[in-house]
Amino acid sequence: LTKIDNNWYTELWTDDCGFSIKVEEKLASKQSPFQKIDFYKSKTFGTFFTLDDLMMVNEKDEFIYHEMIVHPAFLVNPNIKRVLIIGGGDGGTAREVLKYKTVEHLDFIDIDEDVFRMCQEFLPITAAGVEEDPRCNVEFRDGVEVVNNAPDNSYDLILVDSTDPISIGEGLFTTDFYKNCYRILNENGILVNQHESPYFTEYANNMKKAHGKIKNIFPISEVYQFHMPTYPSGHWLFGFSTKGVNPLNDTNDRLWLDLGIKTKYFNPQIQKGSFCLPNYVKEMLENE
Amino acid sequence: LTKIDNNWYTELWTDDCGFSIKVEEKLASKQSPFQKIDFYKSKTFGTFFTLDDLMMVNEKDEFIYHEMIVHPAFLVNPNIKRVLIIGGGDGGTAREVLKYKTVEHLDFIDIDEDVFRMCQEFLPITAAGVEEDPRCNVEFRDGVEVVNNAPDNSYDLILVDSTDPISIGEGLFTTDFYKNCYRILNENGILVNQHESPYFTEYANNMKKAHGKIKNIFPISEVYQFHMPTYPSGHWLFGFSTKGVNPLNDTNDRLWLDLGIKTKYFNPQIQKGSFCLPNYVKEMLENE
Repeated sequence: LTKIDNNWYTELWTDDCGFSIKVEEKLASKQSPFQKIDFYKSKTFGTFFTLDDLMMVNEKDEFIYHEMIVHPAFLVNPNIKRVLIIGGGDGGTAREVLKYKTVEHLDFIDIDEDVFRMCQEFLPITAAGVEEDPRCNVEFRDGVEVVNNAPDNSYDLILVDSTDPISIGEGLFTTDFYKNCYRILNENGILVNQHESPYFTEYANNMKKAHGKIKNIFPISEVYQFHMPTYPSGHWLFGFSTKGVNPLNDTNDRLWLDLGIKTKYFNPQIQKGSFCLPNYVKEMLENE
Repeated sequence: LTKIDNNWYTELWTDDCGFSIKVEEKLASKQSPFQKIDFYKSKTFGTFFTLDDLMMVNEKDEFIYHEMIVHPAFLVNPNIKRVLIIGGGDGGTAREVLKYKTVEHLDFIDIDEDVFRMCQEFLPITAAGVEEDPRCNVEFRDGVEVVNNAPDNSYDLILVDSTDPISIGEGLFTTDFYKNCYRILNENGILVNQHESPYFTEYANNMKKAHGKIKNIFPISEVYQFHMPTYPSGHWLFGFSTKGVNPLNDTNDRLWLDLGIKTKYFNPQIQKGSFCLPNYVKEMLENE
C-alpha cells in the first residue's frame, strides 16, 4: 500500500475512500468569516484551492465545470442579457458568461470576498478581468438575500455555483430559494444550479433532495452530467430548470457556433449527450 | 491533511495523485504466472480485486463498465450470434453478453486462469454462471494467438476487455492485433475495445496511440465515454470500430427495449449521449 501522508492533500469522498494530491507548495491560507481557504500548488493540477478542505477549483480541470455551468443555457437562449451568478467566487463562471457580447449586465454575488480576492492574487486563470468588465457588478453578500429582494422578471439566467449544501451553501438548496429564483426569472428564464453527484450516497441524497424541491416549482426541470475528475466520483451534475424552454429541443446550434466562442469541453453535441442520464440516475431523480 | 496509510489501498493515478480505499479485510492474494492478484473487501465498494495493484473490478461500479462494453454493440446489431471476448477474466463482460438469447456461441479467452477462478470464489457477482452456460467456451490462452489463428469472418462481435497496454496487456494494443480483429470479423462485425482515458497524460497517450492504429484499419472508428469512478479520473472510453455499421445511425432502440434486458447504467439515450465527446478529447483523437 502506497503511503499517502506528508505533503499530500487528501479529500475524503466518503469516510472510507478519498482522492489525494501531492502538494509542491502551500501558497496561502486564511480563515475568512465564513470558511477556511487554502491555496496549494501541485504538478499535475497546477494551483488549486479548497474551502474547508474540500477541492473547489484547480487549473487543470476548472474549464470543464465552468464551461458546463454556463454554455448550455446560451445554446438554448442566444439573447441572454441579464445574468445573476450566486457563488462562484473564483470568477470562472463569470469569465465564461462575459464571453457573450449579448450580456448587458451581470450581478456576480458571492458571500465571501476573501475567496475572490485570493483568486485574483493566486488564480488569475479564473478571476482576472472579471471585476474590470464594466458589465459586471461584483457584490459580496448573501445570495439568499439577493434573490429575496430582487424584483420579478429581473433575469434571463441565474447560475447557482454553490458549495455543497452544508454550512454557508445550505440556503442555496431550499424551496424558498428556488421559488425566488423562479419569481425573478423572466418568461424565457433559465436556472442552472450545482446539483451534486449520483454516485456516493451522501452526494446522491443531496442531489435527490434538491431535485425534489426544484421539480415542484419549475415546469421543466432537467439534469445534465459531465466529467469532473477532481470532484467526488468525477460524475457531476447541474440542474437546468425553466418555465417552458426546453434544453434539448430549443437549441440553436448554428447560431451558437457562429459566435466563435472557444471551448475546450463544451460543444452542441455535448449538450445533447449530457442530458442523457444512466438508468440508475434517472430512477433516483424520478423517485424523489 | 488526512492520513492515508495503514489499511488503505492506494492506486496512484499519476505520480502525484491517487485514489485510496480503506480496506476492511484482505481476502486473498496470489502471484499468478502473469501478475499479482489481490482481493480486498471494503465498506463502500464491497469486494474488489487488483492486478499488479491496479483496480480492476469492484462490486459497486462493475455494472457501469460491463454494461457499457457490451450493450452498445447489441443496440446496433440485434442479431449478434458469435462473440469473442479477449480478457475480462472477472466474467462480467461475458455475463452481459450471455443475457442475449441471440448469442449462440461465446469464446471467452483470458490469459490468466487464476483471475477467473478467484473471481468464481470471491466475486460471484461477475463470474457466477458464466462457465456453466453451454454457449460459453472459456479458454485460458493468449488472446493475440487466438485472433492470429481464427479463420476470416468468424465473429459478429469482438470485445477487448484488457488491462492497460503494459506487460501482458500490450499485445492487445498493436496494429497486428487490430488487423486480425478486422479480418476475423464478418461484414457487419463490431470491435469494441478498452480505450483508456483522456484526462491524465499517460492514459491519454495510450488512448491516442490505440486510436491512431485502429482508425487506419477500420473505416468506422468511433469512441464513446462513460463515468467509471474507480478508474483513473473516472472518465473512461471504449472504441467502437466497424467495417461500415454506424453506432449512432444504425441503432434499433425499439427492438432493444423489447428484449427487456435489465440495465442500471445503459439505455438507448446513453448510447447516443456517450458518443458525444468533449472538444479536448475530439482534438486528441483527430490529431493522432
